[in-house]
Amino acid sequence: MSLSKDELAGGYRLACCAILKHEGSAIVDVPPESRLQLQQLLVAGIEVAVPRDVTVKKFFIQLTQPSLQNAKSDFEVLQDALANHGLRSKKADLGALTSLPLAIRSGRWAITVSMRDDEIICVEPGDTTRRIFGLAVDVGTTKIAAYLLDLNDGKLVGTASAQNPQIPYGEDIITRISFASKEEGNLKQLQGVVIASVNQLLLEACERASVNPSEVFDVVLVGNTVMNHLFLGISPRFLGASPYPPVVGRTPMSVRAKDVGLRTNSSANVYVPPNIAGFVGADAVADIIATEIDRSKFLSLLIDVGTNTEIVLGNEEGLMACSCASGPALEGGHIEFGMRAEPGAIENVYIDPDTFEPWLKTVADMPPRGICGSGIVDAVAAMLKTGIISRDGLINTQVKSARIRVDGVPCYVLSLAAGNDLGRDIVVTQRDVQEIQLAKAAIYAGSVILMKHLKVKSTEIERIFLAGAFGTYVDPQNAMIVGMYPDVPLERVQFAGNAAGSGARMALLSRKVRENIDHLVEKTGYIELAADPSFQSEFAAALQLPHKDLTRFPTIAQLLN
Amino acid sequence: MSLSKDELAGGYRLACCAILKHEGSAIVDVPPESRLQLQQLLVAGIEVAVPRDVTVKKFFIQLTQPSLQNAKSDFEVLQDALANHGLRSKKADLGALTSLPLAIRSGRWAITVSMRDDEIICVEPGDTTRRIFGLAVDVGTTKIAAYLLDLNDGKLVGTASAQNPQIPYGEDIITRISFASKEEGNLKQLQGVVIASVNQLLLEACERASVNPSEVFDVVLVGNTVMNHLFLGISPRFLGASPYPPVVGRTPMSVRAKDVGLRTNSSANVYVPPNIAGFVGADAVADIIATEIDRSKFLSLLIDVGTNTEIVLGNEEGLMACSCASGPALEGGHIEFGMRAEPGAIENVYIDPDTFEPWLKTVADMPPRGICGSGIVDAVAAMLKTGIISRDGLINTQVKSARIRVDGVPCYVLSLAAGNDLGRDIVVTQRDVQEIQLAKAAIYAGSVILMKHLKVKSTEIERIFLAGAFGTYVDPQNAMIVGMYPDVPLERVQFAGNAAGSGARMALLSRKVRENIDHLVEKTGYIELAADPSFQSEFAAALQLPHKDLTRFPTIAQLLN
Repeated sequence: MSLSKDELAGGYRLACCAILKHEGSAIVDVPPESRLQLQQLLVAGIEVAVPRDVTVKKFFIQLTQPSLQNAKSDFEVLQDALANHGLRSKKADLGALTSLPLAIRSGRWAITVSMRDDEIICVEPGDTTRRIFGLAVDVGTTKIAAYLLDLNDGKLVGTASAQNPQIPYGEDIITRISFASKEEGNLKQLQGVVIASVNQLLLEACERASVNPSEVFDVVLVGNTVMNHLFLGISPRFLGASPYPPVVGRTPMSVRAKDVGLRTNSSANVYVPPNIAGFVGADAVADIIATEIDRSKFLSLLIDVGTNTEIVLGNEEGLMACSCASGPALEGGHIEFGMRAEPGAIENVYIDPDTFEPWLKTVADMPPRGICGSGIVDAVAAMLKTGIISRDGLINTQVKSARIRVDGVPCYVLSLAAGNDLGRDIVVTQRDVQEIQLAKAAIYAGSVILMKHLKVKSTEIERIFLAGAFGTYVDPQNAMIVGMYPDVPLERVQFAGNAAGSGARMALLSRKVRENIDHLVEKTGYIELAADPSFQSEFAAALQLPHKDLTRFPTIAQLLN
Repeated sequence: MSLSKDELAGGYRLACCAILKHEGSAIVDVPPESRLQLQQLLVAGIEVAVPRDVTVKKFFIQLTQPSLQNAKSDFEVLQDALANHGLRSKKADLGALTSLPLAIRSGRWAITVSMRDDEIICVEPGDTTRRIFGLAVDVGTTKIAAYLLDLNDGKLVGTASAQNPQIPYGEDIITRISFASKEEGNLKQLQGVVIASVNQLLLEACERASVNPSEVFDVVLVGNTVMNHLFLGISPRFLGASPYPPVVGRTPMSVRAKDVGLRTNSSANVYVPPNIAGFVGADAVADIIATEIDRSKFLSLLIDVGTNTEIVLGNEEGLMACSCASGPALEGGHIEFGMRAEPGAIENVYIDPDTFEPWLKTVADMPPRGICGSGIVDAVAAMLKTGIISRDGLINTQVKSARIRVDGVPCYVLSLAAGNDLGRDIVVTQRDVQEIQLAKAAIYAGSVILMKHLKVKSTEIERIFLAGAFGTYVDPQNAMIVGMYPDVPLERVQFAGNAAGSGARMALLSRKVRENIDHLVEKTGYIELAADPSFQSEFAAALQLPHKDLTRFPTIAQLLN
């Protein structure tokens, strides 16, 4: 990042480089676009009802006090009482046994027993059967969302979300892989910050629901493969080079919460669904679970847009997945005035074809501060429709409008300084348009490669699911206009919201879902785009707006004419 | 403890009370009997061959490197290779997965995999199949013994032993229970010191065998019920009051070595055999395993002598167990000149019936420093045979010998100051004789109660096993003369040495043995002596030497006449 002449003239300095030589006091102003605000991160997602069959269950048990004539250990007394309830247990967690003697006496021989399968994992005095909660966590490259569920009725009782604290170590997963591999200790550092963040979200969600973190008995965590590895403290180093092997692939992991340092009940386990490949992780599996595309007759295309975009195509007969590095542009990164979907972010753009004047909508209707992912896609689509840019993505500086200017590079002024909270014009630059072209070309090319492998045509796609924050706020027609995904009737496009989070919640509530996951992973193929001979040409052709070959986008072609 | 006039006159002072008022330098002499020497603790025990079937096995595995076209996770590559060896594994320890990627690459796709059941618990580069060891530990109230075994051939490669560092918190288990229950933190403290000690023994045994502690993949630990509880960090508090319930009774425990802080390979498990009751623990189970009395047609009586003495009676058809508080006297405790079986301890005593002059044998043939357990039993038996004491245990001060004197209480001089290393006469006091009477009466009464419950007579006992350090060094006839166990032909008495340690080693080497343990525990009954109506009268009658009722000891009665 460097500052323009105008910015320098305006007093802007990079805090990382500037030395304050001025004697005496000075006022340093952090511009609003650089302030980290509490973002409204997407935590909502589609809700799919699942038969509730949780892995940890509580039972209120009345014990029979032993006598000298019938001496028994506390554990045997408990086992006998469990047997009266038709429950058998030969195993007990050391922690449960440690608290057993006092629990029994302070509960006056009436205790609540938490069991996972046939193992006693926790004992508490008295009847606490109504207090059993679980946490579903979606660790994204950019954000982390946590959902607190009541395991008795499956209801969501609290949520919390935050930016992924690993961002300072690398915005995308490739940079984080490099950082993790660079020096001894870096891996532990990355793991440490994400665990600390999940603990913080656990606390927040619990506080909101008046739940004690020790009442959380089960955790499901999804993330892309690299996020999973970092969370578990497993080196993602070899994911950085061909053939990109993860350490843990198509195997679910179950680790003890306390082994990774989560401050739930110490007996809780963390279930991490299997990954499909190095760059299609448990989060994509959770997407599939939430959209149920693996159980549907309809041919579905699932796109979970993020810095890394996962794409899955198929139906109940089989699925094929791939991933592409779509970059941070669609989340507002690498865009001159890009920002996350915080209050003041321009999220919708319409441009009058006659006057070239824009109409804007911002998050929370605050004065504009920058442009978020859906806003920039809207802008590019509008600029294409109005001829401000050509199908090559070049800004036409011949267009007669004060909104179009050349400031180093050609750009289009979305918001004038006078009308916004930034004190500067907010513009879409030529480079911004190119970033969007690169991102959408990768996603489209990935989709096409999947279609080729499954030997289906775009017209056969019956449903397109857009998942992820971007995939919730974007205007589906505008995304199609720029050519992000195949040209299908708009009613086939559905929003899945944070589907990964939804899938994680489903896995938290149902053993059956976890079993399904094992099956679906078995029937999901993977394509390494880097190894596909036609990817490069498909990508190149998709750089145009919407595509070099307009016959692939008949609806959009008609609209542009 | 307080000092006699003579001792005070001799310059003896209690270090815990004395204040040094003298100006200038002074020499403080710690008398030899107060010095803590490295004891030669009993680590030997009977050896019983077991079919070797260890719980952790190593396999050297050649992996197939994946390609872009055949991308696989490291774990999947490993699973495929294992399948080629007929091994299936869906589970892997998080630690093993963490080290997998580097192990694979530094081993150039050839690694050694350690498996417990179907779980991968450790991976190492190259072929390390020859390096796999296990540790068997016997945690006694007074001493801890550790045995390092090569799991490839079952051979003992190193041993180490030490005093139980919990002794300062209480000499016997009752005092330790009190201490553990008194204050928050005490339990952790007792656990901490025993874990530290086992770690130290692990280091020592490993050093002697040129083994790295990380090459220790399995641990078996036996101890009495209280020692087990303290080792696992489970409160023994309720063992201190009727009906004396342990927390863990007839259930084997398996905990991760790292969960309790053992510095073996971090994937090692610690197997703790089940206890039979509050005061008959896993050590007694190990005794049974080592003596195989549960698999024999012969009616056998097993006595593991210690501060707490476990007694088991029975044969393959069933066993009955009890325990009695025999006190520390038989290990040299609570005896005026008592000491552990260290060099210089009087371990054998013979008294000339005509001159009343003693003949002594000391440990390592060093000049006498004190009397150990076998020495004091020998002395009491010899004093009885020579009429120095009556069958009531009273010293006959009428006997004409300079060896018999009254120094506050009547006593018999075993070793004159001139002939020993202590600089003082070593005597057996009237109180010492009483301590032995109390100890042996408890053991005998316990044995009789077991016989009553099984409805057998002492003449039917076909074998008596003496286990524990005392039970190895004691003269079996002298023990019978004082009436410690039933009067049987001497050839029926066998030494089992540290049978608990032997049993622990057997369990370390064989899965089958662990299965047997579950069966034998099921067929072993328990008698709480405190609840038995005839225990008090049996105990009172057994206080005489060898017993109030001489018809129970026909051989000894004849010998005394």
